[in-house]
Amino acid sequence: MADNIPKEQWAQVVEKTGGPVHYKKIPVPKPGPDEVLVNIKYSGVCHTDLHAMMGDWPLESKMPLVGGHEGAGIVVARGELVKDIKIGQKVGIKWINGSCLACPYCERSDEPLCGGALLSGYTVDGSFQQYAIGKAAHVARIPEECDLEEVAPILCAGLTVYKGLKESGARPGDTVAIVGAGGGLGSLAVQYARAMGLHSIAIDGGSEKGDLVKKLGAQTYVDFTTSKDLVADVKAASSDGLGPSAALLLAVQEKPFQQATQYVRSRGVVVCIGLPAHANISAPVFDTVVRMIQIRGSYVGNRADTSEALDFFRRGLIKVPYKTTGLSKLQDVFNLMQEGKIAGRYVVDTSK
Amino acid sequence: MADNIPKEQWAQVVEKTGGPVHYKKIPVPKPGPDEVLVNIKYSGVCHTDLHAMMGDWPLESKMPLVGGHEGAGIVVARGELVKDIKIGQKVGIKWINGSCLACPYCERSDEPLCGGALLSGYTVDGSFQQYAIGKAAHVARIPEECDLEEVAPILCAGLTVYKGLKESGARPGDTVAIVGAGGGLGSLAVQYARAMGLHSIAIDGGSEKGDLVKKLGAQTYVDFTTSKDLVADVKAASSDGLGPSAALLLAVQEKPFQQATQYVRSRGVVVCIGLPAHANISAPVFDTVVRMIQIRGSYVGNRADTSEALDFFRRGLIKVPYKTTGLSKLQDVFNLMQEGKIAGRYVVDTSK
Amino acid sequence: MADNIPKEQWAQVVEKTGGPVHYKKIPVPKPGPDEVLVNIKYSGVCHTDLHAMMGDWPLESKMPLVGGHEGAGIVVARGELVKDIKIGQKVGIKWINGSCLACPYCERSDEPLCGGALLSGYTVDGSFQQYAIGKAAHVARIPEECDLEEVAPILCAGLTVYKGLKESGARPGDTVAIVGAGGGLGSLAVQYARAMGLHSIAIDGGSEKGDLVKKLGAQTYVDFTTSKDLVADVKAASSDGLGPSAALLLAVQEKPFQQATQYVRSRGVVVCIGLPAHANISAPVFDTVVRMIQIRGSYVGNRADTSEALDFFRRGLIKVPYKTTGLSKLQDVFNLMQEGKIAGRYVVDTSK
Amino acid sequence: MADNIPKEQWAQVVEKTGGPVHYKKIPVPKPGPDEVLVNIKYSGVCHTDLHAMMGDWPLESKMPLVGGHEGAGIVVARGELVKDIKIGQKVGIKWINGSCLACPYCERSDEPLCGGALLSGYTVDGSFQQYAIGKAAHVARIPEECDLEEVAPILCAGLTVYKGLKESGARPGDTVAIVGAGGGLGSLAVQYARAMGLHSIAIDGGSEKGDLVKKLGAQTYVDFTTSKDLVADVKAASSDGLGPSAALLLAVQEKPFQQATQYVRSRGVVVCIGLPAHANISAPVFDTVVRMIQIRGSYVGNRADTSEALDFFRRGLIKVPYKTTGLSKLQDVFNLMQEGKIAGRYVVDTSK
Repeated sequence: MADNIPKEQWAQVVEKTGGPVHYKKIPVPKPGPDEVLVNIKYSGVCHTDLHAMMGDWPLESKMPLVGGHEGAGIVVARGELVKDIKIGQKVGIKWINGSCLACPYCERSDEPLCGGALLSGYTVDGSFQQYAIGKAAHVARIPEECDLEEVAPILCAGLTVYKGLKESGARPGDTVAIVGAGGGLGSLAVQYARAMGLHSIAIDGGSEKGDLVKKLGAQTYVDFTTSKDLVADVKAASSDGLGPSAALLLAVQEKPFQQATQYVRSRGVVVCIGLPAHANISAPVFDTVVRMIQIRGSYVGNRADTSEALDFFRRGLIKVPYKTTGLSKLQDVFNLMQEGKIAGRYVVDTSK
Repeated sequence: MADNIPKEQWAQVVEKTGGPVHYKKIPVPKPGPDEVLVNIKYSGVCHTDLHAMMGDWPLESKMPLVGGHEGAGIVVARGELVKDIKIGQKVGIKWINGSCLACPYCERSDEPLCGGALLSGYTVDGSFQQYAIGKAAHVARIPEECDLEEVAPILCAGLTVYKGLKESGARPGDTVAIVGAGGGLGSLAVQYARAMGLHSIAIDGGSEKGDLVKKLGAQTYVDFTTSKDLVADVKAASSDGLGPSAALLLAVQEKPFQQATQYVRSRGVVVCIGLPAHANISAPVFDTVVRMIQIRGSYVGNRADTSEALDFFRRGLIKVPYKTTGLSKLQDVFNLMQEGKIAGRYVVDTSK
Repeated sequence: MADNIPKEQWAQVVEKTGGPVHYKKIPVPKPGPDEVLVNIKYSGVCHTDLHAMMGDWPLESKMPLVGGHEGAGIVVARGELVKDIKIGQKVGIKWINGSCLACPYCERSDEPLCGGALLSGYTVDGSFQQYAIGKAAHVARIPEECDLEEVAPILCAGLTVYKGLKESGARPGDTVAIVGAGGGLGSLAVQYARAMGLHSIAIDGGSEKGDLVKKLGAQTYVDFTTSKDLVADVKAASSDGLGPSAALLLAVQEKPFQQATQYVRSRGVVVCIGLPAHANISAPVFDTVVRMIQIRGSYVGNRADTSEALDFFRRGLIKVPYKTTGLSKLQDVFNLMQEGKIAGRYVVDTSK
Repeated sequence: MADNIPKEQWAQVVEKTGGPVHYKKIPVPKPGPDEVLVNIKYSGVCHTDLHAMMGDWPLESKMPLVGGHEGAGIVVARGELVKDIKIGQKVGIKWINGSCLACPYCERSDEPLCGGALLSGYTVDGSFQQYAIGKAAHVARIPEECDLEEVAPILCAGLTVYKGLKESGARPGDTVAIVGAGGGLGSLAVQYARAMGLHSIAIDGGSEKGDLVKKLGAQTYVDFTTSKDLVADVKAASSDGLGPSAALLLAVQEKPFQQATQYVRSRGVVVCIGLPAHANISAPVFDTVVRMIQIRGSYVGNRADTSEALDFFRRGLIKVPYKTTGLSKLQDVFNLMQEGKIAGRYVVDTSK
């Protein structure tokens, strides 16, 4: 490893399930033959990071743990097998840190479904540290013209909504409903939808969010706090009144889910993305069958989706609403998150 | 109309919701400009016919009503606009009797989803009579070499399972689980699956059904009455142990549905076909999302699906297990159906 | 028919192959049971109209003939079977005037491939008259808020390039090369591409066309009159340098075709749309196979494509460059067309 | 490396372009961290091996060269990063020996199109030796119950025709024409087509080939040596007389290619697979456009295709017609190949 790489670094470490995070010095890891070492400059903070610390998902995490999976940085060292990534290149540490690349899922480009997938900030240490390891085949190739601070949230939030829109099967000219359009994921979804030639019906509560989503490119805003018949209003907002082709559920809750199965047009697709801890989806069989409704779970995107999501950003089509603070302040961000006080995304600067 | 068409005919008429059917003489109808008059020779009897009579579906039916939507017969008269169907040609009256042919669904070959679709034996009179009307563009073109008695159940039962297999997204070489494989729909599904290059895991109860489905071409049989861990057993029956690519639910009930969402492989598709009166489907969000599971309702096939389903039959790849009785005995068939005593399909002969 | 429909009307009639057109009075036709009578207000003029008059395509036309297949007007009468179109509604007479709606192609929404398709202004009289007949299921439903003069060219030119872009398989975020981007079809293609979330590399000759296509939304312009290595320049204009995902050939000539098969990326699709009278396409087998190149012919869109193309127009995303003259001046338009002097589209006003 | 691996081995080496092969002892190579060493037991012999030796393809090969890319054997050593392959496991060395696994093609499961793909027996040493190197992520996982001698030709010949059938877009129940159906690739294609639920029209010359292909499962045989109108005969052999949905060209020559573009139905797909040294494909634009014909090059399959092709074989659905000789006799096989005297496939036994 190059001389300019320190032996120690600052990191935020979860020592035990339930937290809190501890800001402390830990050793800088060394990359294996198929890995790179990334000097993380900025990292987005995601709800999943909080779930990882709290241990309330039905999926075990590493402990002690360095969380974070929206890490944008620069490659400072690489293993002997790594050829297509250069020292100094901009890359991103995303949720899928690595996968076997040879199982039936990896062979079909569905590496997020690989049984051996390594999850950044969950089953392996992530981006809430100054130097993180990523499998070379998996680190996101961030275009050189992108700003690392601004691009960080694309690595999970942007990718996830972009993937959801792809999985919806909606084609350019189609209309999609975006539930939770005024939130952190939603405001990105509205922009990706527009960039993909889709027309969006934004659903959220309050007039402020209505103003926001219209500025971001939504065709119509349906305010669930004032709508007297949300299903009817959403249908009416589609070109032919038959309802949108798809609905993107960014926070799956019982009621919005059931509404979505009603207002999508026949053959419509309801895409579930959000991951509330113990929720269920439920729909009446009769209507699902005779209207040929589809319900699809959409997880994070694969590597190709990542490149595509980044390319939309590179072209200036996506603006991320975020605030930046120091990595040392991560617990404060978690506190705000638990209180539901975050609009948009927080990014932490690892130098502070 | 030709001289040899009688003025009156025998029919089974439901006079009021709840039944029973009355076997009596009624007038022979006249086809409009875009219609054909079909001399029905045989008609299959479907559970839907019972639902139509009992009025227990959330969809209003015509009353009084001549039921039936698996009618195989011969064209005896045609309207002035009908050019591609000849007098004497074999055709079928199927569930979708007609549709507008010009709405967004019809334009995309999804005529079963047309808001103006006419439903044989439900919103228009069907095939439990000797002479039935069908929209010329919609009557099934039955290949001349097919036997009308044997082919009748293909017009709904065969078509429905074939469509479900198409909607499952499974490709040749993939494995599908068929729930209720030993029943009337199931035994056709197993055969269509084999003819389509799919490998099937048949799920049902009892050793007799096991023998049947293996004879019909299922690779594996999982007996839910003896299996100690059905989810594990179904997964184990797939080539790589990751589970089948899809599951076809021929009678959607809560437990088989939930099992199906567990044993299909990640990215797997659970196809709901059966229409129990008041059932719901329900699945945990977390697993649906991180495994990218899809749930799809599949209704009857369109006209292209009908031709395809008939072509598989014409080639001798599908054998329909059925018993024949006279049209005059229809109420007896309904009685057996209500008692759950029918294995395979009943066909009624309109001449008796 | 209503009293306000005249018995006679002005039309442009081709009396014999080779032309010219004769401006004269002819009877107003009557719609059949499944037809509508359209009072054509405006009609676009297409190269195909010239081919129809000259008889230089390998497809026989009606003679004498009223040409035209971009007719925008208002329904003034309808047959007894027509229910979903109202008197006074805006509709369009497009290339596919009618089709059987029941053959294997029509059943699969490929009505332009129907063996019995009626072609407006070719095998049946078209829109160069004040009152034209259209099959009710096929006339384009023009949204009420659209201007009939402006929308006319969407009915063939717009539809054709939109269909070509769909057939290209390119998805939002992909890059497509548009050959002949500065011409009448091309300038629409560039706009549809942008509206569909595609990035376009416009190829044409001269700096004026370069300015035009950039204004219309093309990302890059490659000028074939000045490029020293067109294949290299087009590849370089794609995000990753591997070449565009597809190429749209609006005038298929030998050289642009061969260049396209070279500059599209591996797995790329070359879409042929233009119809020069006696041209061939030719490509080396080796490269086609090992790079998995696809070559696809794309004809006019179906009815669903028509609705979609019109909906993009309705939303204000497509601006048609056109000039208007009187129907009586049609021969002048043909003369300019033969001299290659038309940029954009001519529209004729049937009232003049 | 284990003690039982020898230092030297027998191999067939091409010393210079044009050949011949030299049977001699060479060192046994050592696997890198992401590689396995395979004790090749049997290897199929492909026309490509002859092209590699003769140097008549527009693609440079390694020299001196050990050819061969249908090698079936057993893993005897593996690099430190290899986890999912065991010593003693059956694997195959196929045409794509390795790829970068991180470029835009690899990310989308199109590793055969990877710019950095290693080609067995062409750019890296292949299977005409007793011990060959393969990238662990790329060696074919051969199911344990398969016989290595019999399975060898599946690794290229079987995979190639299976991929071609997938690329044809034909779905179960569709009809495909197979040109050269009686040859080595063709006889596998007929069997894969049947196993995939496709109906095949076999095209070849002579009554012996006719008998063969019918035994293998072809529905119809069209003998080009006796047919008076091949295009008409092939169309007539499809269910509805409109022609097959696709044609598979196993040896692309000018005439069969042009015939194929004529007899496939509208929307039909002509798949080019064969790689004659300097051939071109050529088709008339008009017909290609108005019938929406597609021409597609299909190369070898990816890793998922490989698993699928092997699974069909494992189920006993594919029988490979082959003869076995010793590796030492390879030049004799090449001589027969050059004289066009090989029917079916030759397999060499590396122990002889």
